Amino acid sequence: MQFAGVPLNLMKNKKADYILTGQFSTKAYQEAKLYGDVKVLASSKESNFTYIPDCSDLDVREDADYVYICENNTIYGTKFKELPNTKGKPLVSDQSSCFLSEPIDVSKYGVIYAGVQKNVGPAGLVIMIIREDLISDDLAFTVPTMLKWKTQVDNNSLYNTPNCFSIYICGKVFKWIKNTGGLEAMKQRNIEKANVLYDYLDSQDFYIAPAQKDSRSIMNVTFKTKSPELDDLFVSKAKENNIVNIKGHRSVGGMRASIYNAMPKEGVVALVEFMKQFAKENS
Amino acid sequence: MQFAGVPLNLMKNKKADYILTGQFSTKAYQEAKLYGDVKVLASSKESNFTYIPDCSDLDVREDADYVYICENNTIYGTKFKELPNTKGKPLVSDQSSCFLSEPIDVSKYGVIYAGVQKNVGPAGLVIMIIREDLISDDLAFTVPTMLKWKTQVDNNSLYNTPNCFSIYICGKVFKWIKNTGGLEAMKQRNIEKANVLYDYLDSQDFYIAPAQKDSRSIMNVTFKTKSPELDDLFVSKAKENNIVNIKGHRSVGGMRASIYNAMPKEGVVALVEFMKQFAKENS
Repeated sequence: MQFAGVPLNLMKNKKADYILTGQFSTKAYQEAKLYGDVKVLASSKESNFTYIPDCSDLDVREDADYVYICENNTIYGTKFKELPNTKGKPLVSDQSSCFLSEPIDVSKYGVIYAGVQKNVGPAGLVIMIIREDLISDDLAFTVPTMLKWKTQVDNNSLYNTPNCFSIYICGKVFKWIKNTGGLEAMKQRNIEKANVLYDYLDSQDFYIAPAQKDSRSIMNVTFKTKSPELDDLFVSKAKENNIVNIKGHRSVGGMRASIYNAMPKEGVVALVEFMKQFAKENS
Repeated sequence: MQFAGVPLNLMKNKKADYILTGQFSTKAYQEAKLYGDVKVLASSKESNFTYIPDCSDLDVREDADYVYICENNTIYGTKFKELPNTKGKPLVSDQSSCFLSEPIDVSKYGVIYAGVQKNVGPAGLVIMIIREDLISDDLAFTVPTMLKWKTQVDNNSLYNTPNCFSIYICGKVFKWIKNTGGLEAMKQRNIEKANVLYDYLDSQDFYIAPAQKDSRSIMNVTFKTKSPELDDLFVSKAKENNIVNIKGHRSVGGMRASIYNAMPKEGVVALVEFMKQFAKENS
């Protein structure tokens, strides 16, 4: 719902600037266009989103209400390594697929939101962190009461009957993260896991890793072989080896290893062993 | 979200007629007023919602887009025994607290919706049954894509990542209902349970049952003693006897026994035994 929630709650001047790095920022951009004048500040669409554009000196509009990014791009296996220079405008970040994967400096954001289904708990819940001055009752649109951030804040997130079970599990996961060393330890663990895959990918030429090196995600690692037919064979043989959900999104093809917080290093090591075997058999 | 979803998806003439029988129909009415000209067709507010008004011959407007009711009123312990005569307009019914409690004639409704948290599964999910001709892309408002019913229909209810766990449990509950005899058996069971309480209430004068007899809900049975202090004592003594969540809503005081599908008859019998004991000790 935050594709609409963001413009409905933040657009005072009805102007917002979006950075397009994949399917979800594009969907958010299209939704925002229902409500105002929305500019594409930067995009990597021309390369099918294989990289994060340089966002150090963008042409952010003087009267833009906010700058929007999707920080980790699940389908493409990319992530912002540096946050955009928003020239003082609030940064809105969809962190759905990287939330709690590493420490962040919350003070650099206006709004952070994340569907919990990747790193936190069962689907059907969104966690939002909103800078207090961005929570207002004085909105430019008629906003459904439940979609008004002010409503949720005033009611301690209990205006409606929420997804209690997911909230309960999220609490358990927060404790698990704390008990395993917190976000700094999670980051080290995730980097170590991702490197098992990236180091192998960089050492061979059977598989191609489409995401540019400086944009690589530590949550989603994408790769493909030299043909869609061989990709299909990889996916079906992987399944026989108990490696599942490895098929890439239909818009990019190939494979995607989603190695969220809950995936142990052993799972990544097993995948790389299988990749080596498959390469040997199909070279 | 359907307080806003209903007017956003159904208002073509921006006119709708509401019947107010409690807090949730009133909230829905207030939300609808954000979007159009909304008329109160009937109300039992003057008696603090102790009954369902006669809705056999209401002054439904010729150009009303729909007539809205909340079919079972949790807080007040009332339920529509006859559906309103809507003079041909689509009937929209919030069935959150009576869904699957008994068979219904779906063809009499334009829209049925129900939060699952009473009779079906874990909170955070709404089930909707919408008459096909009421699902349209041609709406009078700019509607968030996710709130458009057409979006959900076109995407088999998978436009967004939904509350999968709740959907899974709902499936289990559907099977449980089928295996215990279906909705007709559920109705008989629920009437039997409710009668244990109502028969006792009608046989004594220590407790007062505020809901009018012809409007009594079989899901929520409300009662009180002669004073708020005695009500408080009832609630605390009940807790000592493992009878919990019996306190009435703050807007009506007293007690409320919610005896949804999952409550066995034994639970109701135990409550009545406790009520008798409490009455004896405090008369």
